[in-house]
Amino acid sequence: MNLPSLRLKSNSDRRLRGGHLWVFSNEVDTAQTPLTALQAGQEVQIVTATGKPLGLATVSPDNLICARLHSRDIKLGLDKSLLVHRLNIALSLRERLFDKPFYRLVYGESDLLPGLVVDRFADHLVVQITTPGMERVREQVIEALVQVLKPAGILFRNDGAARKAEQLPSYIEVAWGEVPERVALQENGVHFEAPVHGGQKTGWFYDHRMNRARLAPYVAGKRVLDLYSYIGGWGVQAAAFGASEVMCVDSSAAALDQVEHNADLNGVADRMTVVEGDVMDALRELKGAGEKFDVVIADPPAFIKKRKDMRNGENAYRRLNERAMRLLNRDGILISASCSMHLAENSLRDLLLASSRHLDRNLTLIERGYQGADHPVHPAIPETSYIKALFCRVLPV
Amino acid sequence: MNLPSLRLKSNSDRRLRGGHLWVFSNEVDTAQTPLTALQAGQEVQIVTATGKPLGLATVSPDNLICARLHSRDIKLGLDKSLLVHRLNIALSLRERLFDKPFYRLVYGESDLLPGLVVDRFADHLVVQITTPGMERVREQVIEALVQVLKPAGILFRNDGAARKAEQLPSYIEVAWGEVPERVALQENGVHFEAPVHGGQKTGWFYDHRMNRARLAPYVAGKRVLDLYSYIGGWGVQAAAFGASEVMCVDSSAAALDQVEHNADLNGVADRMTVVEGDVMDALRELKGAGEKFDVVIADPPAFIKKRKDMRNGENAYRRLNERAMRLLNRDGILISASCSMHLAENSLRDLLLASSRHLDRNLTLIERGYQGADHPVHPAIPETSYIKALFCRVLPV
Repeated sequence: MNLPSLRLKSNSDRRLRGGHLWVFSNEVDTAQTPLTALQAGQEVQIVTATGKPLGLATVSPDNLICARLHSRDIKLGLDKSLLVHRLNIALSLRERLFDKPFYRLVYGESDLLPGLVVDRFADHLVVQITTPGMERVREQVIEALVQVLKPAGILFRNDGAARKAEQLPSYIEVAWGEVPERVALQENGVHFEAPVHGGQKTGWFYDHRMNRARLAPYVAGKRVLDLYSYIGGWGVQAAAFGASEVMCVDSSAAALDQVEHNADLNGVADRMTVVEGDVMDALRELKGAGEKFDVVIADPPAFIKKRKDMRNGENAYRRLNERAMRLLNRDGILISASCSMHLAENSLRDLLLASSRHLDRNLTLIERGYQGADHPVHPAIPETSYIKALFCRVLPV
Repeated sequence: MNLPSLRLKSNSDRRLRGGHLWVFSNEVDTAQTPLTALQAGQEVQIVTATGKPLGLATVSPDNLICARLHSRDIKLGLDKSLLVHRLNIALSLRERLFDKPFYRLVYGESDLLPGLVVDRFADHLVVQITTPGMERVREQVIEALVQVLKPAGILFRNDGAARKAEQLPSYIEVAWGEVPERVALQENGVHFEAPVHGGQKTGWFYDHRMNRARLAPYVAGKRVLDLYSYIGGWGVQAAAFGASEVMCVDSSAAALDQVEHNADLNGVADRMTVVEGDVMDALRELKGAGEKFDVVIADPPAFIKKRKDMRNGENAYRRLNERAMRLLNRDGILISASCSMHLAENSLRDLLLASSRHLDRNLTLIERGYQGADHPVHPAIPETSYIKALFCRVLPV
């Protein structure tokens, strides 16, 4: 192939050789190969300072992460053929691990497809493209998905924040066939419909599947509070697994309508209530009303989106979890989740411990959960690991 | 109560207030309250430099960890009544989470019973005592266990290395009723017998239960290699979950006899083979013979027992996993476990990544597992968290 080269400074090849897929702009020998000469999304050959090829990447010349490797074999350019190959590899893992076609089929770098996320809802696919490199092969992505999966419809949810940083336009578009407003899915044997056009992200969060699967023994016969419930991923499963009562709190009326619909789908609406409002306000009111719960699930949106939010974000996690803990019965379970990549599991553990000490309670970690197997972690890229869920038992000291 | 005090130096109360249960010898104001005046196992009141009580502990005057807190309420001395109370709290968690009476019932500090471990095999209990404080109330431990669980037999496996450091005698003894050579247990629906008198530790490792539960989708129809198999905890479950063939490697002929017996119990003996010998030698021979496996499970004994073993231990983990990786088929799964508390999960991940790069393979982390819920983690005591199991997919680059 006749691709332009992007030459690294000496010793800047170490991370890539170690398994990472990203090139940072300060690692490029811009005197020899100026980034300004490249177009956003263009495919290049990454070479070491001595000219040795390391693989193929697409570039974001204006970005700190200025190139992302998609292949270490310089014969494998980013085209339909490579996309089909990678999709088949991704699919074979999911088909082995999940008995129903509801999962994240492609998880970016971890599936060696930087900039591409595909969530599968049986015959419907919801796709996010987050890099100019993947946007450039948008049509080939569609063709490859059609060839491998023969879907009834493909929806692009290209309206995420990551695209703004790449100066890509924001849009939501049915790119193939038809995709209804809501699509059906099953998770851990429980039925849902997800608002794929208008909901958060791709409409559904498959990432907590394995953690929700662990709910059953904790919630059976218990009173459960689900904070930041969205459309009831945790709450409806808790009810389906035998909770005596589940209260879902969310600020979105549309999400709570969907909670009720999802509860109906599973015949558990009589055991569920919804509360519309700010979660922190709701926690104050529940405390004031003397309400108590056996299990509280706190799975908030990312409070730490960027490193600079760390301090405020950690305080927000601490406040949320401490208020949640106050609502627990004498022998209670707090399921504290975080999707902030920047919040280390140990930091979450430490702030839970501090809160428990502050409230003079004794807290132990019963289980620790992470993102499910359809969100594999690339071992060289910490950013691909973000979900944690700590199942805590909170007792009097 | 009329207990002697152990006074801390100023500012040495911070860790205890933060939730920790240990006092280190250099934190004691030995001028005011000499450790040498205390007997091993004696119960004391821990007080701050200003005399404020923090709780009750038992002491190991000659040890770096010179006292372990068992109660923050100074009215709750370490007696049968407290033991019964703590056992009931521990039992209620296990009964909620496990449908059969096979689990670690007491896990030391995490169950607020420092120095005590109890593994339950239905009517038989295997107990380890590791501190003089718990040894002092040995008879009350038996009485409390009898009151709460009405067991048919209690076996003390007081032959672990931790006791030597505490200058406690090493012994194995049936302390109540009768305990047969082998006791039956079920894990994830699979039947086993564990050699509780003569096997490793308490005879069985409940700590990997949840990780073994995840084997099914990985091993169905596949050829599996189980390294350091002991009595087949992983291997027999792999066969029971549908592996086409399982090879167990261990250096202990007695353990391998038990593998075969456990295979028989589940009717999978025709799909299992055992290899007696050093694991590293066996890996070399299997490579030489051109053998390949779809799944390799590497769950070695702790290669890093003390911090000073860190470097050699990490090298041992690297060598083991790299050799294991070499035996994988083209799209293979490596399940790499570690029970070394000193080996951080990220260190294990990094050495697996380095090995995969060295072999020019692409490795992703599919699942991450930890010790089961019957081994709760005390959030202030990192030593209570030790098990990790990384499920890795290893592909050509």
